[in-house]
Amino acid sequence: MNLVTVLDLIRFGHARTRPELTEYSGLGRTIVAQQLDLLLDLGLVGDGRLAPSTGGRAPRSVSFRAEAGSLLVAELGATSLAAGVSDLNADLIVQHEESFDIGRGPEQALERLGEVLEALIEKSGVHRASLWGLGVGVPGPVEFSTGRSISPPIMPGWDNYPIRQHLADRFGLPVWVDNDVNLMALGELRSGRARGEQSVVYVKIGTGIGAGIVCEGKLYRGAQGCAGDIGHVGVREGSEVVCRCGNRGCLEALAGGAALARDGTFAAASGQSPYLATVLEEGREITGEEITKAAQRGDPVSVELLLHCGRLVGEVLATIVNFYNPALVLVGGGVAAAGDVLLAAIRETVYRRSLPLATRDLHVYFSPLGDQAGLCGSAAMVTDELFAPSQIARWLERGSPAGMVDLTTTLAT
Amino acid sequence: MNLVTVLDLIRFGHARTRPELTEYSGLGRTIVAQQLDLLLDLGLVGDGRLAPSTGGRAPRSVSFRAEAGSLLVAELGATSLAAGVSDLNADLIVQHEESFDIGRGPEQALERLGEVLEALIEKSGVHRASLWGLGVGVPGPVEFSTGRSISPPIMPGWDNYPIRQHLADRFGLPVWVDNDVNLMALGELRSGRARGEQSVVYVKIGTGIGAGIVCEGKLYRGAQGCAGDIGHVGVREGSEVVCRCGNRGCLEALAGGAALARDGTFAAASGQSPYLATVLEEGREITGEEITKAAQRGDPVSVELLLHCGRLVGEVLATIVNFYNPALVLVGGGVAAAGDVLLAAIRETVYRRSLPLATRDLHVYFSPLGDQAGLCGSAAMVTDELFAPSQIARWLERGSPAGMVDLTTTLAT
Repeated sequence: MNLVTVLDLIRFGHARTRPELTEYSGLGRTIVAQQLDLLLDLGLVGDGRLAPSTGGRAPRSVSFRAEAGSLLVAELGATSLAAGVSDLNADLIVQHEESFDIGRGPEQALERLGEVLEALIEKSGVHRASLWGLGVGVPGPVEFSTGRSISPPIMPGWDNYPIRQHLADRFGLPVWVDNDVNLMALGELRSGRARGEQSVVYVKIGTGIGAGIVCEGKLYRGAQGCAGDIGHVGVREGSEVVCRCGNRGCLEALAGGAALARDGTFAAASGQSPYLATVLEEGREITGEEITKAAQRGDPVSVELLLHCGRLVGEVLATIVNFYNPALVLVGGGVAAAGDVLLAAIRETVYRRSLPLATRDLHVYFSPLGDQAGLCGSAAMVTDELFAPSQIARWLERGSPAGMVDLTTTLAT
Repeated sequence: MNLVTVLDLIRFGHARTRPELTEYSGLGRTIVAQQLDLLLDLGLVGDGRLAPSTGGRAPRSVSFRAEAGSLLVAELGATSLAAGVSDLNADLIVQHEESFDIGRGPEQALERLGEVLEALIEKSGVHRASLWGLGVGVPGPVEFSTGRSISPPIMPGWDNYPIRQHLADRFGLPVWVDNDVNLMALGELRSGRARGEQSVVYVKIGTGIGAGIVCEGKLYRGAQGCAGDIGHVGVREGSEVVCRCGNRGCLEALAGGAALARDGTFAAASGQSPYLATVLEEGREITGEEITKAAQRGDPVSVELLLHCGRLVGEVLATIVNFYNPALVLVGGGVAAAGDVLLAAIRETVYRRSLPLATRDLHVYFSPLGDQAGLCGSAAMVTDELFAPSQIARWLERGSPAGMVDLTTTLAT
């Protein structure tokens, strides 16, 4: 426990010298010195330059050795596959993104992900022995403790699929799997705008819609690890629109990227939007992205579609703001690129339908990390798990983090 | 910090001997012994009987001295005033409840509360010098850090009222104020069905509707301390029913106790419910309670009213379950006394509109503590604050908790 306390103070940059570590940890000087020696032995911490003196002998600074190990990180979206190799600070050494339809099923998707990761390892020049873990995000509910996707509405064929087992077998590494939005929230918490915040809701509006929750400065996953699944909240009782989950009137079915594409295509075909009709005539598909572009160029139908999307998301967010009273709401995902029109509609609805006290100091912003949030979050998830007290205890038994590979057996069960 | 760690292990019953304290705290034996001596000096812990030996010398058990101090606890409802004197374990020594309309404003309410508390102190035989703090719940949003009610929709005249200041001045005690539902959730967490749970949502259906949130085993108050204010979530977009908050179609306006009374009175007057008409004829008012009684005696209109209430609460809860993925939902408050009809409607709606993973192991129960939850929670709030690291540090400066009275100045500002 004390080892983790000291390590976390160093790796999150809260303490940089032995006196600071003693002060912030509340631990005795001897204990801090012991733990620090252990961390130096493990190679997780390096002795650095002399720090400025505060009177007596200048203390030597200590720093986290982010290069001590490397991580494989990945994010499967509904229509994309992104992956990278990062250091222990979630800084990406190499990365790659391509289109991929998650509906092709787990075998094909994980096969392709494996190829991409192999190529990235090659390209990065990282030694296989220095790979410490693999983190992956998927666009649906995940039971975090087992690394399986559970009844994921937009991932046909993935129900109960042992993602962790599959990747652990392939790479011989400990693997953690989480919902993509949780990882985006975690990425923003560690490296983005949510840094230092205690209560945050991250909303992703892409093909699907979901939320990630930060509670007391930590990612909150809920009892089954599926907290944040707001895409299937019912927003229109009488709606005829059937969602991929089987219900009617779900938020995602009415305001997600697929809904925008559907409504935009209808507006093009029915002549309501000459601008979108031109897009069709030019042989392009009408996607959320095209509608965003159209709105930016002043197409009134596209502006209205985005406003509608923003209002529906805002309605659900208003309920969440009343319930959860966050300090910060971040909006990310492909549709979020639509910009100010969307954000204004979300804000207006949230402020209108939430209690004054809940919105008094509430900030609603776009996610500044954008596309990077998910991969950053994957890396943060892996380091958080690797540096958890229970894992560190195993490291110490084995004398070195290199023993980590053996963990896969335990983890996969 | 270490002192609090040791104290909490003892007062929550996790550790009963020195060896257990050393094991569970992760602290060294010497540090545990030092902290324990300090707690014995402060009178917070007592040396007890010999515990069973596990081989060597039988360890002497230690226990929390709940009688070391006494607490004043109170709960203001929309139409009631409850108060008591408790020990440091939230066990009530004396208590009292009476009808009181919160709409009479803060001066009258706090004056009456003062009288009631004075009488209770007298009755309990507790010495004034042994009173350590006062905890009070109110039926509206509270800024926890300042102890003020902020824009409370069902508490006319209370906006921004310094409740803490008023009571601290009157009793010369440190005072903490929170939303009544937060305290009910805290009461269930410490003494009721939520004991040991990590993520819980407590929903109170009374005159108003609100929720209390437990996150990672602790009460979560949100960024401004108003988390859980779900009474003013919009549930019917086109509704004409104006809520006390000024909006239309709020959950509380359509499903709270006042809504039941309104709809029941209409059903009585219009002849739809001969049973309720009789209630009116007998000169009684139609309240949520009367409708509950009528439903239990088979009045179909009353059953339908409760089903409607349960479905509306269930809709909002379904959103919350999707978002927050709790392990447990507890339903309490006056209307909850309606029993199985209401609970069945809530459950049915929650299960229908939430994702399968979120409801797989979800339990939805009535609050077993019922009326007592709020007072238990008030006491738990006060002890949590009194035994927080920052407060304990002040105790130690003064050498004794008797110095606590001086805290009021600091607290009230």
